[in-house]
Amino acid sequence: MPNNSDINSKIMENIIALCKRRGFVYPSSEIYGGFSATYDYGPYGVELLKNIKDNWWNFMVRHRSDVLGLDTAIFMNPKVWEASGHTTHFTDPLMDCKNCKARVRADKLVEEALRTTKKDFKTVDFSSKTAVRQAIDDLMVACPQCGKKDWTEIRDFNTLFETYQGVVKGQQDIIYLRGEIAQGMFVQYKNILNSTRARIPFGIAQSGKAFRNEVTVQRFIFRTREFNLAEIEYFVKPKEAPEKLEFWKKTLFDWHTKNLGVAENHLHWREQTPDERAHYSNGTFDLEYQFPWGFDEVGAVANRTDYDLKNHQEKSGVNLTYTDPVTQENYLPFVIEPTFGLDRTFLEILCDAYQEETTANGQRTVLKLHKNIAPIQLAVFPLLRNKPDLVSLAQKIFAQLKEKFVCEFDDNGNVGKRYRRQDEIGTPYCLTVDFDSLTDQTVTVRDRDTMQQTRMAVSQLEDFFNKQFI
Amino acid sequence: MPNNSDINSKIMENIIALCKRRGFVYPSSEIYGGFSATYDYGPYGVELLKNIKDNWWNFMVRHRSDVLGLDTAIFMNPKVWEASGHTTHFTDPLMDCKNCKARVRADKLVEEALRTTKKDFKTVDFSSKTAVRQAIDDLMVACPQCGKKDWTEIRDFNTLFETYQGVVKGQQDIIYLRGEIAQGMFVQYKNILNSTRARIPFGIAQSGKAFRNEVTVQRFIFRTREFNLAEIEYFVKPKEAPEKLEFWKKTLFDWHTKNLGVAENHLHWREQTPDERAHYSNGTFDLEYQFPWGFDEVGAVANRTDYDLKNHQEKSGVNLTYTDPVTQENYLPFVIEPTFGLDRTFLEILCDAYQEETTANGQRTVLKLHKNIAPIQLAVFPLLRNKPDLVSLAQKIFAQLKEKFVCEFDDNGNVGKRYRRQDEIGTPYCLTVDFDSLTDQTVTVRDRDTMQQTRMAVSQLEDFFNKQFI
Repeated sequence: MPNNSDINSKIMENIIALCKRRGFVYPSSEIYGGFSATYDYGPYGVELLKNIKDNWWNFMVRHRSDVLGLDTAIFMNPKVWEASGHTTHFTDPLMDCKNCKARVRADKLVEEALRTTKKDFKTVDFSSKTAVRQAIDDLMVACPQCGKKDWTEIRDFNTLFETYQGVVKGQQDIIYLRGEIAQGMFVQYKNILNSTRARIPFGIAQSGKAFRNEVTVQRFIFRTREFNLAEIEYFVKPKEAPEKLEFWKKTLFDWHTKNLGVAENHLHWREQTPDERAHYSNGTFDLEYQFPWGFDEVGAVANRTDYDLKNHQEKSGVNLTYTDPVTQENYLPFVIEPTFGLDRTFLEILCDAYQEETTANGQRTVLKLHKNIAPIQLAVFPLLRNKPDLVSLAQKIFAQLKEKFVCEFDDNGNVGKRYRRQDEIGTPYCLTVDFDSLTDQTVTVRDRDTMQQTRMAVSQLEDFFNKQFI
Repeated sequence: MPNNSDINSKIMENIIALCKRRGFVYPSSEIYGGFSATYDYGPYGVELLKNIKDNWWNFMVRHRSDVLGLDTAIFMNPKVWEASGHTTHFTDPLMDCKNCKARVRADKLVEEALRTTKKDFKTVDFSSKTAVRQAIDDLMVACPQCGKKDWTEIRDFNTLFETYQGVVKGQQDIIYLRGEIAQGMFVQYKNILNSTRARIPFGIAQSGKAFRNEVTVQRFIFRTREFNLAEIEYFVKPKEAPEKLEFWKKTLFDWHTKNLGVAENHLHWREQTPDERAHYSNGTFDLEYQFPWGFDEVGAVANRTDYDLKNHQEKSGVNLTYTDPVTQENYLPFVIEPTFGLDRTFLEILCDAYQEETTANGQRTVLKLHKNIAPIQLAVFPLLRNKPDLVSLAQKIFAQLKEKFVCEFDDNGNVGKRYRRQDEIGTPYCLTVDFDSLTDQTVTVRDRDTMQQTRMAVSQLEDFFNKQFI
């Protein structure tokens, strides 16, 4: 009998296979043998990703009056990364095997050893390189490649990607691909105050790519070197920070469960220990989802204090304090950061929606995606592709509905096969035009989740679907 | 009296100033003195940019059944860029002044000399480095920095940005930031055929960032090193390529004029000469907009032939031909590429919408943006901020409308100043709640373009605005 971990890794394999088969996610540059841990979103993936992003933007920016959008460049003045501490602190602790030269992340290796031996994480001191190195010896951690236990000391390797601006060799400036999207919001915070009606408390929202030259990349789109983030930096009066942190924890959790349809019992908050926390935070809660490999981080809410604004104020010489227009109080705001990975959230949603079911007609695989984020809302089928009357009526209905909904037309193979395909894409409704349709102007509407089929007048379709999709 | 060119450069300055003042575009990393030719989109800019992108996506992807979306990574296998010819052909012809060491783009310098002396471009042969270098001598082009005429030969400098993947110095792989977004679509074309119902003719649409290490960057967001593209690669039967090229020229032009509201007489097509064309094209038409500095490229439709698929097929060893399911014909498709720069289109729209007007109440600056892409749809004002009844009713109306429309609340300064601010943001409608509103439940609705004010019942607002915004 397979154990749980075998079953779970099989589920993960099946989800990855579905992603490629149904056009959600392809390995990047696949015709050239791929490219390490890089993926592309296919036609259905790009729609699902856009729906997640738009849902977030509408909910967090357009429907709130205290959050404003921003879209900063990937390239920034390198001084930004010095002030933020990323050129010095944004590092992975790496260690080499003296025997086979394998390079590994020391902290992750210790974590894995603790997990395997079922030891308590609290028995290890993660607070310094020396302490982690000591744990390697104490736990007698062997090289995963050659099995020897002959390790070098741990060194910090910066994970910012470097590139060069300017075309003249030797006169080029080193610049960095941003390692997070937050800094753009901090350095533009004053411009936003000056050009809008923003008053504290208020947030700046941004989504975009960040890049980290990670040594370990793994688990499909979960950890990659190029990834999409969506994030708010919420500026508050320092003493209100704890209360706003709780507010954003609740808002982020509710958004994942209500708007994205993820099951509440598959998500939880975990407070990071002081040793785990990033250098800028004085309190971070990770939002963890129960992936097939266990609970893992999809987002976080951190209290970044005034760490970033203070450093930028100091290094730039620009006054970044805020003066309250009513009380005239002057202070450097604290920042609460609700953030999440869009690619991880995409994977979270797929894992949560993925079902292998036994039905009366045999097995089916179905993505029970929340209706409002499904990549295709409706599919329209003529019962048979070689009957011009059926095809023509189906195309007429398709053309009408396509004006209002995201629709797909399919006349390939039998209807059973088409249902199976749409189930795997997560399409909530399929419409079939059959011979009765030609005389009574009704069609069959089939519900993805219940598989129930209902007869409906063509004239009522638009109204019906308007009510299904908000 | 100022001449036209002074007036035009003044208009450009005013537009740039408005962009910063009203939160459309800020210089990047400004608190650190900025960063060469890099800009960030502020709260209103990000909404306008999103509206342009979404309008394109809905029009070109969701409402068509022959175009599918894709979102490929910025990092790709370096072999992609070798096969596409970018590592060898994607270059700028640079030349140094032997006297002051200034580095310039030779072809641009010749073009400028021709423009200044009002000579016909056809008098110069741009087809080789030697020919361009000869033109420099013939036209006696002087160094714009020191005025000497002592030039080196022209050399090609590759404009792909390089970075390194992997953290071990010396063992890192050179990778490139993509110099265009088209290649992702070519290398995934087979995966899309396999995972969707796509049949030729069909297109793949993508928008995203590309990066070019340009030697000359200029004109605000018009030419930058990091920029947003939106593009379709439309796969056709080779003999149908000319007809589809015309179709996409018409579609792209109509989209700019009808959906984005740009004046028809400010846009034209210009066919590129064979010497101007990129290495992959056998015919390219530039869509040019009349910017304050003259007609300049915002988009293009090119016939890329089977150049890209042929190279990728050869270099990857993967068969990229298409077999028609009906006729069984087997061929390598030609590709028609309708493409445009999103940042350039953003600037085009701003320039076209920007007006300085003399009204009965003095001067005003207004952005007459197409209603459907304006960053804010409605602004709601209480007549006075210190009258709780007015504020409370205005906030109630604001909260209701915000569920359906992108709204802003403003109680800052007098109503005249608020109108001026919303005019500069391009908000089509402003609603003012005054003392009469408290008794008769009506408000004043002011139209941005006509400045007409109409009294309207609060209960009718939602219906009225539903009709204004499609």
